[in-house]
Amino acid sequence: MKQSQLFTKTQKNAPSDEVSRNAQLLIRAGFIDKEMAGVYSFLPLGLRTLQKIIEIIREEMNAIGGQEISLTALQNPELWKKTNRWDDEVLDVWFKTELKSGGELGLGTTHEEPLTNLIKKHISSYKDLPVSAYQFQTKFRNEKRAKSGLMRLREFIMKDLYSFHLDQADLDAYYEKAAVAYENVFQRVGLGEKTYKTYASGGTFSKYSHEFQTITEAGEDLIYICDKCKIAVNKEIIDDLSHKCPECSSSDLREDKAVEVGNIFKLGTKFSSALGLTYKDNEGNQKDVIMGCYGIGPQRVMGTIAELFNDERGLIWPESVAPFRVHLISLEKNEEAEKIYRELLSKNIEVLFDDRDARAGEKFADSDLIGIPYRIVVSEKSLTSGGVEIKKRNEKESRIIKIEEIEKELRSKE
Amino acid sequence: MKQSQLFTKTQKNAPSDEVSRNAQLLIRAGFIDKEMAGVYSFLPLGLRTLQKIIEIIREEMNAIGGQEISLTALQNPELWKKTNRWDDEVLDVWFKTELKSGGELGLGTTHEEPLTNLIKKHISSYKDLPVSAYQFQTKFRNEKRAKSGLMRLREFIMKDLYSFHLDQADLDAYYEKAAVAYENVFQRVGLGEKTYKTYASGGTFSKYSHEFQTITEAGEDLIYICDKCKIAVNKEIIDDLSHKCPECSSSDLREDKAVEVGNIFKLGTKFSSALGLTYKDNEGNQKDVIMGCYGIGPQRVMGTIAELFNDERGLIWPESVAPFRVHLISLEKNEEAEKIYRELLSKNIEVLFDDRDARAGEKFADSDLIGIPYRIVVSEKSLTSGGVEIKKRNEKESRIIKIEEIEKELRSKE
Repeated sequence: MKQSQLFTKTQKNAPSDEVSRNAQLLIRAGFIDKEMAGVYSFLPLGLRTLQKIIEIIREEMNAIGGQEISLTALQNPELWKKTNRWDDEVLDVWFKTELKSGGELGLGTTHEEPLTNLIKKHISSYKDLPVSAYQFQTKFRNEKRAKSGLMRLREFIMKDLYSFHLDQADLDAYYEKAAVAYENVFQRVGLGEKTYKTYASGGTFSKYSHEFQTITEAGEDLIYICDKCKIAVNKEIIDDLSHKCPECSSSDLREDKAVEVGNIFKLGTKFSSALGLTYKDNEGNQKDVIMGCYGIGPQRVMGTIAELFNDERGLIWPESVAPFRVHLISLEKNEEAEKIYRELLSKNIEVLFDDRDARAGEKFADSDLIGIPYRIVVSEKSLTSGGVEIKKRNEKESRIIKIEEIEKELRSKE
Repeated sequence: MKQSQLFTKTQKNAPSDEVSRNAQLLIRAGFIDKEMAGVYSFLPLGLRTLQKIIEIIREEMNAIGGQEISLTALQNPELWKKTNRWDDEVLDVWFKTELKSGGELGLGTTHEEPLTNLIKKHISSYKDLPVSAYQFQTKFRNEKRAKSGLMRLREFIMKDLYSFHLDQADLDAYYEKAAVAYENVFQRVGLGEKTYKTYASGGTFSKYSHEFQTITEAGEDLIYICDKCKIAVNKEIIDDLSHKCPECSSSDLREDKAVEVGNIFKLGTKFSSALGLTYKDNEGNQKDVIMGCYGIGPQRVMGTIAELFNDERGLIWPESVAPFRVHLISLEKNEEAEKIYRELLSKNIEVLFDDRDARAGEKFADSDLIGIPYRIVVSEKSLTSGGVEIKKRNEKESRIIKIEEIEKELRSKE
């Protein structure tokens, strides 16, 4: 798209009440806007990045047989009373509201109850299992404090997948597949190297659950990393494990701060037994369905990427989630830049074209702040030198390449 | 996808409390599930159709320069007090809730206020205008009654586009472009023939606004159609027009029931002046920005399609919004059906493959209820007769065609 059309402007300074690095950069670059603490709007650049993260997650969920659905935010208390999660003492992040026609409602903070109830209407026999269903749906959490930008939100999209199984063995096998899908997601969005599958507390039905924790100073969690096994342990259970790696039993663990970017959890029969989700096995006996749940918050993933990949000049997006692949900058009005823009579009290369009537310094500063992976500058100087200046966002020096070589240069890095 | 994997089952009967035809059919066919009156979940088939409607709207909004964003459901009262729309006496569909950290919040029923406020941060000069921005975002409306299935919801996605202009002439020109984009949308989703651009009350800044009204017995509105001009007038202003067509002045109008599937509205400076959205013109004077707004509810569009296109056996989807293009049914386990399924997938033709171990009668009944445009049956009988049986959902008789001709047959109807 042409930058002269993009309605957002970059800002020199972030709002003074914004303490987190990710939100400061994302607001300054025009990716998001703060509605209130923990509640952010997504602007054109930010929504493009968010949609790319969502699409990567969608592909990985489809690959493990997930069927996409969309449940509702408005929740009827009856169902939640059956699992004892309506009470604010038990689930302390409810936003509650009232119907004008009478009756209290809640805004969904998670969806085990409604999905279990829905699946009841469609499952009766062992032949109907396994099932896995997921959604990208807006959750509301009435957090007392929200000061970490996109990393702790009061309103956010969650990808929550729930799986339903005949027996523990089938859940266990699916759980391992889901763990691999999660690793694929974090790898693809650029967080792979810094993200550890982390042992965490498992609840009633399982010894452990697993979180995916990404190392960052901005994280609210403490984890203990075993570099040999490339896994970690959440502080909450490290004492139970006598400060040893649960895989190799080494005590050579290093502590670090991290943010939880995903989690997978074996629910067992907790919700199915409370809500009566059963199936008839091949001998005619009614049995409780065994469940698992699997969550990722795309906005938190985006916040974490922004938190990790930046320098003093701005954001540095991994190619897979950048709002555009190329930032094309024309320093003077020139036909050549327009031609290159149309050419890139025709090749389906996503390009933001800075065609504005602005100073070179302003254009470069904006480009660094926005953080698109490739910067291509077209100027009289570059044309005289034989083409365009190309530079990756994380490179110091630009190079001159011929116009005919642009596509090859961009494709070679995919 | 294989129907044996699809977790939803069709139902013989709709829930007894469901009075609307669209919801009855969509629930029975497994497209949606009722959470409470006016609040529905979208299941795999239903979400596919909804996403197709959304994608058609998105393409048309992009084509008129709309920039996609996503605002928040949680709303701070301060902004709404400035426009006098916080009070329940003024805006009577608020759901209100409270922050645990203190303070009242509302769930957005519409977004003129927050978007005007956002645009203020990015617009200062006449050079920054015009701008148009839109979103697909969940609205909440605390309706006293909700009994029309997807046609009147308490929680629903709305595509709301807002445009910002230098002057009335620029708004007027954009408004006409938006009207054409809306006509394109309704044409593409299959509602074109039954949908009328309808004159409605215009508020303070404009004589008329326009609704897009689709003729249906289930509609809550009364409109007066001028068949000559192919436009209509909402009952609310027909007296002001002395029961005459506002375009040709004919009094030959016929009354009909209709549902409002979209609306476009000139807001003038109502929100910009209340919230201080101004720009500096080329002589340095501060002026209020002129605004328009443009809404479509994709779920209501889906409900209207379901309401209009059905017969006693089930739904009949227009091809553009059907969850799949082809319903492939194998009557006995046969290799040929599997081969055709893989072949259609490889050609990127969307196909639901009924590979279930079920009776032919059940498969046909399900297929009619779900309403996919093309039914292809593969059976020993069809193979003996030289190929497969093909039938469109709205045709009575099937024909035998050769397997090699399937693709050509499907493509020819696009």
